[in-house]
Amino acid sequence: MSPIFISHFTLTDLESLSNTNTNPPPSESPSNAPSSSSPSDNSKSSTIINATSIARSRGYEAICIPLTNEKWKSRWKDMCLLPGEDDTLPNDREEFEKKAEMWRLRPGYLKDEVTITRLDEAEGVIGLASEWLELDAADDWVRNDAETALLQELSYAYYLGIQTAILPAPRNRSQVGSYARAINACLATIPYVSISVKIPIYDPSMIQLVHEPPLTTSVNISNGNTGNRTGGARGGSFIGDQYSIATWEMWDAIRSICDYNTRLTLTLDMTLPLPSETDVLCQWVAEPVRFLFLPASIFIPNVKGYPVLPKGTQSFLRDIMKIQPYVILSGAASGRHNRGGEAAYIQYIRHLEKTSPAVKASHTAGTVENFALGYLDYLQAPLQPLMDNLQSMTYQTFEQDPVKYRNYEEAVYRALREWPRPGRISICVAGAGRGPLVARCMKAMIRAGKNGPIYAVEKNPNAYVTLQERSKNEWGDKVQLLFGDMRTLNVPEKVDILVSELLGSFGDNELSPECLDGAMRFLKGDGISIPASYTAHLAPLSSSKLYNESRSSTNTEKGLETPYVVMFSAINILSDDGPGLSGKCGPQVQECWEFEHPRRDAVLNDQGLPLTNSHNARFAKLSFHIPHAGILHGLAGYFEAVLYGNIGLSIHPQRMPTVSKDMLSWFPIFFPFREPLYLPSNSELQVSIWRLTNERQVWYEWFAEAFLPLPSISSPSRRRSMKTDNNSNSHYLGASSLNSSSSGAGSPMVDAEDISLPTFEDAQNELEEEPRIGLVKIGQTFLHNPKGRSSWIGL
Amino acid sequence: MSPIFISHFTLTDLESLSNTNTNPPPSESPSNAPSSSSPSDNSKSSTIINATSIARSRGYEAICIPLTNEKWKSRWKDMCLLPGEDDTLPNDREEFEKKAEMWRLRPGYLKDEVTITRLDEAEGVIGLASEWLELDAADDWVRNDAETALLQELSYAYYLGIQTAILPAPRNRSQVGSYARAINACLATIPYVSISVKIPIYDPSMIQLVHEPPLTTSVNISNGNTGNRTGGARGGSFIGDQYSIATWEMWDAIRSICDYNTRLTLTLDMTLPLPSETDVLCQWVAEPVRFLFLPASIFIPNVKGYPVLPKGTQSFLRDIMKIQPYVILSGAASGRHNRGGEAAYIQYIRHLEKTSPAVKASHTAGTVENFALGYLDYLQAPLQPLMDNLQSMTYQTFEQDPVKYRNYEEAVYRALREWPRPGRISICVAGAGRGPLVARCMKAMIRAGKNGPIYAVEKNPNAYVTLQERSKNEWGDKVQLLFGDMRTLNVPEKVDILVSELLGSFGDNELSPECLDGAMRFLKGDGISIPASYTAHLAPLSSSKLYNESRSSTNTEKGLETPYVVMFSAINILSDDGPGLSGKCGPQVQECWEFEHPRRDAVLNDQGLPLTNSHNARFAKLSFHIPHAGILHGLAGYFEAVLYGNIGLSIHPQRMPTVSKDMLSWFPIFFPFREPLYLPSNSELQVSIWRLTNERQVWYEWFAEAFLPLPSISSPSRRRSMKTDNNSNSHYLGASSLNSSSSGAGSPMVDAEDISLPTFEDAQNELEEEPRIGLVKIGQTFLHNPKGRSSWIGL
Repeated sequence: MSPIFISHFTLTDLESLSNTNTNPPPSESPSNAPSSSSPSDNSKSSTIINATSIARSRGYEAICIPLTNEKWKSRWKDMCLLPGEDDTLPNDREEFEKKAEMWRLRPGYLKDEVTITRLDEAEGVIGLASEWLELDAADDWVRNDAETALLQELSYAYYLGIQTAILPAPRNRSQVGSYARAINACLATIPYVSISVKIPIYDPSMIQLVHEPPLTTSVNISNGNTGNRTGGARGGSFIGDQYSIATWEMWDAIRSICDYNTRLTLTLDMTLPLPSETDVLCQWVAEPVRFLFLPASIFIPNVKGYPVLPKGTQSFLRDIMKIQPYVILSGAASGRHNRGGEAAYIQYIRHLEKTSPAVKASHTAGTVENFALGYLDYLQAPLQPLMDNLQSMTYQTFEQDPVKYRNYEEAVYRALREWPRPGRISICVAGAGRGPLVARCMKAMIRAGKNGPIYAVEKNPNAYVTLQERSKNEWGDKVQLLFGDMRTLNVPEKVDILVSELLGSFGDNELSPECLDGAMRFLKGDGISIPASYTAHLAPLSSSKLYNESRSSTNTEKGLETPYVVMFSAINILSDDGPGLSGKCGPQVQECWEFEHPRRDAVLNDQGLPLTNSHNARFAKLSFHIPHAGILHGLAGYFEAVLYGNIGLSIHPQRMPTVSKDMLSWFPIFFPFREPLYLPSNSELQVSIWRLTNERQVWYEWFAEAFLPLPSISSPSRRRSMKTDNNSNSHYLGASSLNSSSSGAGSPMVDAEDISLPTFEDAQNELEEEPRIGLVKIGQTFLHNPKGRSSWIGL
Repeated sequence: MSPIFISHFTLTDLESLSNTNTNPPPSESPSNAPSSSSPSDNSKSSTIINATSIARSRGYEAICIPLTNEKWKSRWKDMCLLPGEDDTLPNDREEFEKKAEMWRLRPGYLKDEVTITRLDEAEGVIGLASEWLELDAADDWVRNDAETALLQELSYAYYLGIQTAILPAPRNRSQVGSYARAINACLATIPYVSISVKIPIYDPSMIQLVHEPPLTTSVNISNGNTGNRTGGARGGSFIGDQYSIATWEMWDAIRSICDYNTRLTLTLDMTLPLPSETDVLCQWVAEPVRFLFLPASIFIPNVKGYPVLPKGTQSFLRDIMKIQPYVILSGAASGRHNRGGEAAYIQYIRHLEKTSPAVKASHTAGTVENFALGYLDYLQAPLQPLMDNLQSMTYQTFEQDPVKYRNYEEAVYRALREWPRPGRISICVAGAGRGPLVARCMKAMIRAGKNGPIYAVEKNPNAYVTLQERSKNEWGDKVQLLFGDMRTLNVPEKVDILVSELLGSFGDNELSPECLDGAMRFLKGDGISIPASYTAHLAPLSSSKLYNESRSSTNTEKGLETPYVVMFSAINILSDDGPGLSGKCGPQVQECWEFEHPRRDAVLNDQGLPLTNSHNARFAKLSFHIPHAGILHGLAGYFEAVLYGNIGLSIHPQRMPTVSKDMLSWFPIFFPFREPLYLPSNSELQVSIWRLTNERQVWYEWFAEAFLPLPSISSPSRRRSMKTDNNSNSHYLGASSLNSSSSGAGSPMVDAEDISLPTFEDAQNELEEEPRIGLVKIGQTFLHNPKGRSSWIGL
């Protein structure tokens, strides 16, 4: 789990190494070191092999080096960059152009133009593509020739079996499309080689002092509304969020153009020191950061002279370590810092990694992070325990939860203690599984000093065998086992307390509401249900990883029409606490709906069952404030349950630590979107989600719309209808008067030459109102609804 | 081609009809008119059958009527809307709820609740779903019960074989997601029945006086920049474009949620009179408008008392008639106007249709509109005459063009006339086909009084037979035929004038540049190429039809990665002439690139052929101003060619009428986008398009990014780098200083506790500059590039 280090060698580094080397470097005496390596060559030494072995001896896994040298650079420039008009005769110029054309026709290197020529040299090497390649040059010829040169370089890397090449950063936003298209062409043409694009972590021209009001968008400028902003607290802060993340936006354009190709990754260039306020940088954690590029120059000496990192960089590194990027150290051998030598850099990064909260948690037994190792960002189909009979192993995994059953026992205990009537109290465990809740109920009975029967209902015939065994060996006649579905089974008496654990990651997604509707038949009118209620919660999420995972699912259509259970790691929650510029957004994570048990108002048939399931349909429309530009890939879903009183269960990221810390049984749920949706800084996302039902199934549908808040001259007080009849139905908004009946609407009496309009004065009066914030729609997702049977939940 | 009329009957209309009817209407005496119709019932009369036959006798094709009546409305309301708490006892309330639940479980009508009961009554009827259904109610229960009722209604329509149902308009923007999801569920559940959503043509609350400055967005409010706006000229105008099109935006959300289901269409409600300025309404022409709903109330009397339409409505109707919507007339029998009776309305609409410019053009022989009848919005793969040998029929079709060959002859004639040297002049027709250009060259020779050989080069062996025949019968020894590919063939002498017709709809897309590169071998150094040059042009386009056509192509991936040739009809060009709010946008239709012949600077091999094709690669990045919200489905492509001097060919929509009016040979080209991209009002669209080439193929790639212009505090003069070395490379924009070398960048000397930042005073000084317009990215398309061989163009 310790980070993997890569040592960065510049051409200068390699040159000085070759000068101290007894073997002639390949570029110096070509005749002695033939580039066509035969097996016997592999044993010969070379500068590159020396560099690799030096690096390995110092704790690095591998080295990264430029693939080409200055000779190639100068040949390419001679061929492809036009000399000044005065420098050469037209004759020479034609000669130059002919050379370039010959190269374009059959691109290739001379042996002395590359740093590696042999297979054994290339082993474990990460290649750096030529820094001077301008894939985003404004000049068409320079750009096209850079693309040809890159293709040649990658083709050579492929020949040598080099697995990864790192590309120089894009530099020209207006040509990022060309930069990206060139990469896409390389990915399509060159098999196997991964391409990692070097991207600076932020644009330094966008940093500003904290004392300035946060001038985030036009809105703040024009009406001075700066009240509702979070962030920008201490130290350096960013000018306008949409700009601070400018380098992320370039990366996003590139990988979007490359359609999220999994061979395209990111080398995050950490050359710049980070300000202490870095929440805008969270977006990087949701990206495929394969390498961190850390030059020795970013390190600063601590009081003892050892190299350490600035605080902002420390904190960012601790955060991103959880996605396990390789660390490329550059210039660490140059003796820039007094103490510790090269090893000090590596030790320091190792120390940062070990003190990363996420990494620490994953190393600590009993945490959900530790429990989830191996399952990070891994998509699982949610359980359907009503349709499928679970395996014993599945029960066993969940029974390990140290928190869930403790809280259940406490809830039952308190319910028993606070039970108003003296004497016998009956409990029914509905969905007993292998019996963990039955055991806890017995303990709670004893602790509370109460007495009464415990019924255990289970419909899984296999688990029922285990129940019988426990009944015989442990419980005796205190527990009465009942085999069958709680929705139809007859229980000998109505009970005082009904205990169930039918909850899924989204609360109701394993059909707890429907099952408990059936179980209510045997709960007394004033009886208690544990849980008493539960709620479902959502937040918008960005994650390249999860997007690629969900769409690569065998059946693409289905892959994105069904939610998944997943332990999040490489994700970023895009929302923050509202209210946003419109003042109408809710918190970062928002509640969708609630289910309560027992429900008092259902219409029941003669068997005590609801006539239809329509009372379990739900709908929520949520508004999220998106502070920083990001790309929406899906929705993170959580649940929270009230067991009894103030005893609960929660996987809500902000409340889990207080309600049920270290509970293991539930990972969050993930609702994917079929296509990514770009969200600018300070935008608002409106999410609609439905829980729908028919006689046989329950399913979710979801979609989202994006808006930008802008000053608007339209507001309810400014709207007016055109001589149409007033519609008294107050929940009808603007378009209400449009719902024409065949009489009254329109204006049959107007003159043929003109249309009756409000007067100029009317308009003037209304214009004097101050502008308000209106929402301008900028995009939407598809409606996601299950098309295949398997993404429905069977009743 | 005359419009089809539908007569609208309200419940009141039907009632008064049944009262004048000798037969008892079905709702009055249920026992006499059993709803289970046997064959003999079909001959019996009924109110509906009377209505249909009355309508047919008056010139209508069919009738549209409500499917349900007041009895159903009142039963539904009794069941599904809660009575006030005081009105009824709890007992009654439970009874009500039970009724509702029973209905939800098994929805169905009583016979008296529907207007149609028999198959023969339903024939040709268009059903109106109950107007009072609130699919977008704020209340969950009302909304869900409305959906159940709609499903029941459509299921009944399906039972009766009714093909189309018209739905009441959405009224509540904030619940449009629920409205749309309900429709999507109906489309998934009910087969066969088309659903047409009634949408008012605009939101009347958004109309304003022309005298007001056009307050389109925040930008105009905050800095008074109103200079660059078009529109808003005479009569009533719209407040803020993003609002005037509010009803279109609702429609767009609905059909997007329904994923452009082809069974979902639009009934445009024309109840409101239109202002004279209607360019914002062009968007409707690009939508599947199946019906126009025209109430008699919108008609006004002309001086003689006949019903006519207001000017704005007239002009809109003339425009939309080209997509042939059915016209629903409502209340035309009510005698609202003095003169002409019901027939006057129909006659008037017919008159409008006949005077529609598009319809008129399509009826006029010799126009491209007439030539294109049957091909409107029909996607064709572009010809690949270099790879495929064309059929004689294809040549014949193109030879019919009255304009193209006239212009060619004129160009050759003028070139001959202006030829500077006296004596013999030689011409080569490169790509002679069946010989039309050869014949024209001969005519031009005669007209110009010149003499010399004409060579005719053709590589299609089949067309070469026709050439031989014409040579023998018509041309004699004036013409020398040469069989072979112009890129490799030997021509006996270098000629003075090279004539070719190798152009495609996008200019270079049939490989004219590559073919003429080869033909340049036999053109004299000072010779003339006809055409001398050609340019490719693009404009962003919206069209539901074309989007659905291109994605329904058998291979979806391929379907959207290749351009099509198509005669546009139901489309809307989204751009208008710039410069937009940023001041950087070009005109409505923009030039991508140009090819010139002969080109003087290619590097040639010994055979006189270019070494590579890289000089024929092209790239263009275009910025379009999008004045009104719309949805981008693709790019419209055109070409323009200079034949000689001021003689040209053009299908550029603005210039074709002056350059080559009535030319038939080329329809425009269409570059589709895989997913629609929403563009708000006043946004900017940046389109990148590449013409790419390798040794064997030529292809196009394209993508687009959308931006909103907002006041920005970031501008070149405000950018600063953080103590990094200055980069003198001036075309590198903001991020240039990020391209760290391993030395210099970063800040190794800073204190471990802080980061060096610009001073507060620096920031204050810069803040005093006035805000500028910056572009905030809001979305992008995929990169489109050909994946299948068939979408490449072979060299």
